[in-house]
Amino acid sequence: MRMYDIIATKRDGKELNYDALKTFVDGYCDGSIPDYQASALLMAMLLKGMTHQEIAELTDIMAKSGDIIDLSGIDGIKVDKHSTGGVGDKTTLVITSIVAACGKKVAKMSGRALGHAGGTIDKLESIPGFKTELTEEEFIENVNRIGCCIAGQTGNIAPADKKIYALRDVTGTVESIPLIASSIMSKKLASGADKMVLDIKVGSGALLKTQEEAEELAEIMIQIGERNGKETIALLTDMDTPLGYAIGNLNEVREAYQNVLGQGPSDLMEICLVLSAEMLKLAGYGSYDECYQAAKEAVASGKAKAKFIELVKNQGGDISVLEPVNDEEVITQELVASEDGYIQSMDTEALGKASMLLGSGRKTKDDKIDYKAGIYLHKKTGMKVSKGDVLATLSATDASKFDEARKVLATAYRYSDKPVETKPIIIARVDKHGIKRY
Amino acid sequence: MRMYDIIATKRDGKELNYDALKTFVDGYCDGSIPDYQASALLMAMLLKGMTHQEIAELTDIMAKSGDIIDLSGIDGIKVDKHSTGGVGDKTTLVITSIVAACGKKVAKMSGRALGHAGGTIDKLESIPGFKTELTEEEFIENVNRIGCCIAGQTGNIAPADKKIYALRDVTGTVESIPLIASSIMSKKLASGADKMVLDIKVGSGALLKTQEEAEELAEIMIQIGERNGKETIALLTDMDTPLGYAIGNLNEVREAYQNVLGQGPSDLMEICLVLSAEMLKLAGYGSYDECYQAAKEAVASGKAKAKFIELVKNQGGDISVLEPVNDEEVITQELVASEDGYIQSMDTEALGKASMLLGSGRKTKDDKIDYKAGIYLHKKTGMKVSKGDVLATLSATDASKFDEARKVLATAYRYSDKPVETKPIIIARVDKHGIKRY
Repeated sequence: MRMYDIIATKRDGKELNYDALKTFVDGYCDGSIPDYQASALLMAMLLKGMTHQEIAELTDIMAKSGDIIDLSGIDGIKVDKHSTGGVGDKTTLVITSIVAACGKKVAKMSGRALGHAGGTIDKLESIPGFKTELTEEEFIENVNRIGCCIAGQTGNIAPADKKIYALRDVTGTVESIPLIASSIMSKKLASGADKMVLDIKVGSGALLKTQEEAEELAEIMIQIGERNGKETIALLTDMDTPLGYAIGNLNEVREAYQNVLGQGPSDLMEICLVLSAEMLKLAGYGSYDECYQAAKEAVASGKAKAKFIELVKNQGGDISVLEPVNDEEVITQELVASEDGYIQSMDTEALGKASMLLGSGRKTKDDKIDYKAGIYLHKKTGMKVSKGDVLATLSATDASKFDEARKVLATAYRYSDKPVETKPIIIARVDKHGIKRY
Repeated sequence: MRMYDIIATKRDGKELNYDALKTFVDGYCDGSIPDYQASALLMAMLLKGMTHQEIAELTDIMAKSGDIIDLSGIDGIKVDKHSTGGVGDKTTLVITSIVAACGKKVAKMSGRALGHAGGTIDKLESIPGFKTELTEEEFIENVNRIGCCIAGQTGNIAPADKKIYALRDVTGTVESIPLIASSIMSKKLASGADKMVLDIKVGSGALLKTQEEAEELAEIMIQIGERNGKETIALLTDMDTPLGYAIGNLNEVREAYQNVLGQGPSDLMEICLVLSAEMLKLAGYGSYDECYQAAKEAVASGKAKAKFIELVKNQGGDISVLEPVNDEEVITQELVASEDGYIQSMDTEALGKASMLLGSGRKTKDDKIDYKAGIYLHKKTGMKVSKGDVLATLSATDASKFDEARKVLATAYRYSDKPVETKPIIIARVDKHGIKRY
């Protein structure tokens, strides 16, 4: 089948078989299929949808387009965690410490990101000295020695996905649930973990705005995982408000550290405990309740904190930055409430954008991140405020960044005269048996 | 609006305003918007549709992207005719002669084509010496002197459409009725005619396979014409069987000539008389019946033949090729009926493809046309055949072309035991007042 016919088949709403999908992926990667044909097909996939068979096959083809990481050098069940990303999401740093403190191994490969803040790897690099580029051998050796390691992708993981994603990113074709599922799962299948916990964010600060879409994504991803013999569960978690109070890179590392000390914000603490418990359960630690208790205990006992410090030190990071210090390089400004009342809602996407404008994220992949830039929230949805109360502290090392960021940030708040009910942080749990909504 | 947002807007099924459409067209033409964004938008336009407002504005923007031909140097109402194209469609050569023979001027700009056979310009170039590249001044002077001229596009007509069409052609986005309408009408608006007759082909050998699609296209195109003060009417004509018996370039020129002699196939004759009458009527010749009679009379009296010869000679063409001659360069083969019975249907697209494979058309724009290649049909849908009867004569100057062409041609025929009812050639007539189905 020629690429033209592949496009026409999907345009006409028909199913593509394995050979057609492979022709597309291989041809696009080797350059024989041009960008403009690939983007037409991606738009047709987005608008006409894909069958479960198509999604599974596309995932498989992309997973096999590069290296498949071999984690057999690490004893026991390796459980991975993946978040679809949201504003203030610093759970990986916390969960890795908790799960490893409970004696289960965490071999976590993370990425960089475009958008409001960096990915986990960017966040870790805000710690001076922290080394994220490791060989596969160093990575495995670290996990075996201290129980955990967070590194950038070693090897050439799902290069087809990387190339296709870059095209989707500029052609309005990111927002396809089948394509999101196959993109994430292709990387996960290639990364060598045995089981997976997915954290699917829903709300104004997430890619998926509705619970319906998030449930669909969860079900598709779980199916792909199970087809490949990798037990997968998903939590749908709220991203209508940022997670915790800190947005940015170093800001978020510090809040993550506060959290392993047991002093973090309650929404962040809850989500980290639940995700840790799910990972421990998949790793064979015990019943869910036992796992949840163990995670709580790891924080309360200081074991999680010790593991966090061990993790940072082990990868060469300077732990002195974990506690806030007076940094002359950092400029701050405050945003105050313009009304009396309750905060009815926060446009979390706008908050993320404001933080990015301060320098915490990249607009394009060549932008440099200002690790010290970001936003610290003093008030969140549901809280009562009086006119003039400080809502947020903006920080950056470049004074010229504030004007635009403030303008965007100021648009993010909606007020109400009456008390506002807030949502629970965990919205639903999905596994192969079905969905449980909270 | 950035191109990304323009794509997302259409993807989400919302209307694009004039500025957004202009940003797309201008940016794509000046190279600031890449192919891959343009093709994603075109696919979204195809799958999500376009409003009448969007179609009209896109047409207007593309029409104004290059030169607007000024035909004011020609007296009287200039009526153009456009066919959406089909297998064996050689009406332009005939109609131009008939209308000019009736004293109304025809200033016809035509194009080349990809596909089963060349465009009108390619067909005319199968006449040795025929000059199709004229300046605007030469073109106008010819029309004023002998009443008609058929030339390739002078000037830079709708370059935006040309660039966008080339992209649609390789990205499965040709088959959008709004995009087809805006593509054709942008060229027509830029070509300077006052009024238009559209010949919209429907059936297995046409781009539009169903009457419903053809009616939609007709209505949209008429609306665009009327919005621009150019009275427009459309005929829907059958393309389930090829028009006439000849397919190819020189083959079709000869059949067109037979037709002005009054000796052509009846389907071709009928469509040419009706189209000529519609053009004459728009040009102010008289009532439809008067126009139809005049067209018939032009053929019967030999005036149309004389005008045809004058047209060919005037542009330098060698009229000796108009009558079939024994040409040693041409190789022929015959295809015979494999069954007794009636021809139930012919896959006209396959017939066109077989002819292209013989060399009569271009697969890519760099292919050279074999003017003498093509197919002459001896039997058409509805005719009774006995096993072994000659169905078609294939011709080409390259013996290596026959195998593949024969294979495709042999698949095109379906037989029936019982007599088969054939369709009328004129299916419907559409103008601003509505549709009349025959």
